[in-house]
Amino acid sequence: MPELDFSRLTIPPIDGEARETAASRQAELLKPPGSLGRLEHLAVDLAGMTGGDLDRLWPPMILVFAADHGVTAEGVSAYPAEVTAQVVRGFLQGWTAIAVLAHLNDAELRVIDVGIATDLDAVLAGVPEHRLVRARVRAGSRNFAVEPALRPSEVAAALEVGRSQAHAAISSGAGLLVLGEMGIGNTTAATAIVAAMGGDDVAMLTGSGSGIDETTVGHKTRVIERALARLAPDPTDPLDVLGKVGGLEIAALAGAMVASASAGVPVLLDGFITGAAALIADACAPGCRHYMIASHRSCEPGHDAVLRRLDKTPLLDLGMRLGEASGAAVALPLVRAAMRLHLDMATFAEAAVSREA
Amino acid sequence: MPELDFSRLTIPPIDGEARETAASRQAELLKPPGSLGRLEHLAVDLAGMTGGDLDRLWPPMILVFAADHGVTAEGVSAYPAEVTAQVVRGFLQGWTAIAVLAHLNDAELRVIDVGIATDLDAVLAGVPEHRLVRARVRAGSRNFAVEPALRPSEVAAALEVGRSQAHAAISSGAGLLVLGEMGIGNTTAATAIVAAMGGDDVAMLTGSGSGIDETTVGHKTRVIERALARLAPDPTDPLDVLGKVGGLEIAALAGAMVASASAGVPVLLDGFITGAAALIADACAPGCRHYMIASHRSCEPGHDAVLRRLDKTPLLDLGMRLGEASGAAVALPLVRAAMRLHLDMATFAEAAVSREA
Repeated sequence: MPELDFSRLTIPPIDGEARETAASRQAELLKPPGSLGRLEHLAVDLAGMTGGDLDRLWPPMILVFAADHGVTAEGVSAYPAEVTAQVVRGFLQGWTAIAVLAHLNDAELRVIDVGIATDLDAVLAGVPEHRLVRARVRAGSRNFAVEPALRPSEVAAALEVGRSQAHAAISSGAGLLVLGEMGIGNTTAATAIVAAMGGDDVAMLTGSGSGIDETTVGHKTRVIERALARLAPDPTDPLDVLGKVGGLEIAALAGAMVASASAGVPVLLDGFITGAAALIADACAPGCRHYMIASHRSCEPGHDAVLRRLDKTPLLDLGMRLGEASGAAVALPLVRAAMRLHLDMATFAEAAVSREA
Repeated sequence: MPELDFSRLTIPPIDGEARETAASRQAELLKPPGSLGRLEHLAVDLAGMTGGDLDRLWPPMILVFAADHGVTAEGVSAYPAEVTAQVVRGFLQGWTAIAVLAHLNDAELRVIDVGIATDLDAVLAGVPEHRLVRARVRAGSRNFAVEPALRPSEVAAALEVGRSQAHAAISSGAGLLVLGEMGIGNTTAATAIVAAMGGDDVAMLTGSGSGIDETTVGHKTRVIERALARLAPDPTDPLDVLGKVGGLEIAALAGAMVASASAGVPVLLDGFITGAAALIADACAPGCRHYMIASHRSCEPGHDAVLRRLDKTPLLDLGMRLGEASGAAVALPLVRAAMRLHLDMATFAEAAVSREA
């Protein structure tokens, strides 16, 4: 794969013939037609993405991009910024939700430092680092309440980290990328991105993130509104939006999504922040969203706007709002079930079962 | 365990202290409190059911009870009655949805013939039978459009099959029973049971089952209405309801649920028909429902009434309506995720992560 050059990049079209073949098979499998509900639609979607070769989806790989956000200086988060690095340590120790879920799903987890602000060496002393990829573009984004979060060259570098990590995962055999993030303050950046891209009312999109109170939600809303008014990101230019109010992990996620779609490899989205990255990715490389599966509906109010714009209905609605790819990892067995049911069930004819009452 | 004698049976109370301990642990785990949503509530519920020993839930076992229904003579189903036995053959061959899902979840599947009307020996020639339990009470229920479906002794025998199968599963190490059924015509029996137990309007509860058209749904509704008017099952006597409009697999499911709850072992319900059995079980042995987990919301319209009466919110809403325990098996990884996250994540203190912004 070349470096990320959107002008030279094409997203392969969804395979309509493979979809039709898959839909016909679903109608022949040993069950009343339609009785597996969303799992049938998912199998047909996956067939369209993989040219009918659903087996190719396994093994999946989980990529979690981590970065810090200068805007935390405005007091928009329930946790201090140093938690980003501490939770990354928890990923490597196997102690966080995504580490537990990766183990349970027998899926490889890679954690990519694309812009943590803390000195990791001090935080990680004695912790095994085989799951960590060090690819820091800079020590956190700038405070977009004061100035643009990232320079164009930093946006490009973060997109490139995402592209190269997706490429490495796919090269090592992954057939499905499960994407997530960690970054204290990143619901603030994601909300600003979603508002900038779609013109929605910021107050309607802003939520409590990791758990701030109502007063702080109001403050967070005003911080975002003022930044958008001052920096005026161009809604038609996703890289301008990323530069003005984005974050390094969000840019990397978008890069990974574009690279994955351009290689014809589906991605399983997590919640609101990966959703914001998905909007960026689809704006950079139209058609990208056809390779995306929405895993769950987050509590974060802006997620509904994201899902609507991506035209996706999530598989799960469990009131989750953790990030780390945790919602996607909880949905991963559903994707696997859809795949294996499609491939392994017999047809009525094969099973010699009667069909007419 | 003794034979099923409801007058001598007690359902152990849910362990409130274990629930509180689990809720405290959830608040301490390395995530914003509440950010795992329904998975946190589920972990607390499971703690209450298991006295805090969530590890005990694994391995689960899948029990699918199969029987035929005399009421199929009225033309209420999309498939002929011989399909029950043919699909049971598919279970044993590994070709049906539940066989694929059992394999995927590494869970043992047992298929219990509690009342199939077909000669199984002819249908199963050459098929491995190690997953099959032969415990037929009679060759299908009677046509309740004409006469009561089951005699009291047959109801008792079918309940006892369920009890003994649950007992056998638990004795062999199962910590969670995943329950389902197969029986052409059984949405008709289940609808009649739900209507009889709760007094809902039959037309509001009756659905298309395995896929009948609107005209046939109307016919099915009238068959149920007339049977209820003629047989007048006593809504306060669940065994009378089972005898008049029930089915052998539904009685066996109720027996398995009561036995499981009385042993303090949770059950994972499938859809509408296991739901109807759950109403019977909780009426026979009040408190039984506190050991039940609702896996998914079925398309069958009567399922909402069932879930409301059981006071359960299902984990999944995927538009499934297959039965066979397939919805429960698709939700099984979610139960496992809730369990392992609860047990395996570190706390903030263990991980030395900061909490105050």
